Amino acid sequence: MFYSPDALPSFIFPDVSLSQLSLKNPPKLGFMASGSGTNFAAIAESIQSNELNAQIEVLIYNNPKAKVQEQAEKYQIPRVLINHRDFASREALDEAIVRTFKEYGVEWIIMAGWMRIITPVLLNAFAERVINIHPSLLPSFRGIRAIEQALAAGVKVTGCTVHFASLEVDSGPIIAQAVVPVLPNDTAETLHARIQIQEHKIFPMAIAIAAQRAEISASS
Amino acid sequence: MFYSPDALPSFIFPDVSLSQLSLKNPPKLGFMASGSGTNFAAIAESIQSNELNAQIEVLIYNNPKAKVQEQAEKYQIPRVLINHRDFASREALDEAIVRTFKEYGVEWIIMAGWMRIITPVLLNAFAERVINIHPSLLPSFRGIRAIEQALAAGVKVTGCTVHFASLEVDSGPIIAQAVVPVLPNDTAETLHARIQIQEHKIFPMAIAIAAQRAEISASS
Repeated sequence: MFYSPDALPSFIFPDVSLSQLSLKNPPKLGFMASGSGTNFAAIAESIQSNELNAQIEVLIYNNPKAKVQEQAEKYQIPRVLINHRDFASREALDEAIVRTFKEYGVEWIIMAGWMRIITPVLLNAFAERVINIHPSLLPSFRGIRAIEQALAAGVKVTGCTVHFASLEVDSGPIIAQAVVPVLPNDTAETLHARIQIQEHKIFPMAIAIAAQRAEISASS
Repeated sequence: MFYSPDALPSFIFPDVSLSQLSLKNPPKLGFMASGSGTNFAAIAESIQSNELNAQIEVLIYNNPKAKVQEQAEKYQIPRVLINHRDFASREALDEAIVRTFKEYGVEWIIMAGWMRIITPVLLNAFAERVINIHPSLLPSFRGIRAIEQALAAGVKVTGCTVHFASLEVDSGPIIAQAVVPVLPNDTAETLHARIQIQEHKIFPMAIAIAAQRAEISASS
């Protein structure tokens, strides 16, 4: 018997729930996104429903057509287009991003499907405050088309990982992971859909874990 | 709240149980092991208790002091010492192993902690009939000290994988995987102990899955 897609158990590690993480001060989040914005929306929803104690100060998107801007409009969050095509280098792009985030008082950068390679300009300005999500159980399947990579490898389980960003793509200390079974007839689309469900659970949780850790180390 | 080590859920993929796999003919297994023989014992136990419909024809071990020989004695299974130090090459060692397995009528080779690199001599003689186990969620953490590698990488989940052996170490088509959470205070020893519990579940299951698939393709 295989898991039916609607009866999948939830395999999230560490096994904490948002209600167990109490933040004294809501962390001020700045988002970077290039795509549809499902993770952005999941976190905005988690804040609106008082599950995650945080504030989204601004969304930066790099593609004029990115659907994520509609999500920002829906949740009434300021959005700024910073088109990578307008910059001569990755560093110049990141300088503009850092400047914008600082203007908005951002403390934590959340990369929610940002399809550009980041540089030390960004990482040094927000040291240990840049969080990324990747649709695999890292360190397996780094880089693009992670879900296709997992299907090609024939793994029976995959998942998603929230981690601190580092200069190496899809590396850096892991905060949380969720496990998703690969079903016998999975396509990249069906598997991606099930991984996204887990992404929407671990992303807010990982933000709360990271913010709580930072509060604890600041107070000790 | 974290999982307490004795209340860990079982995360096995695919989610089949041995009782759902009916084999017409019990596959004839030949084991290769270098160590303590916990996986050998788990499979022998699973056969003795009629969970796995299979026969162990012989155990080959390469180390005169390997404790696995005591397990073979306990389960009254023939054991043959083939000491790699007596052979001039990996190929010569594998020739002796193949000869022994053929003498005993072995159909499937089960590598249960065999600490030597295998060659085409073995793989060609038992094409798609050599099964290995590895204590990680492959393709992460191939090679030796997989559990230490996982701890060093800071993953929140790891596990074990049963797969068909190939010339590349810890590669080849995956048959089954089990997920094991990494707990905050885990050492290599505590994590290894929890992974072993899952190994003992997926190894008999994976043998039955592989044997059933072979029966189905032979009859079609």
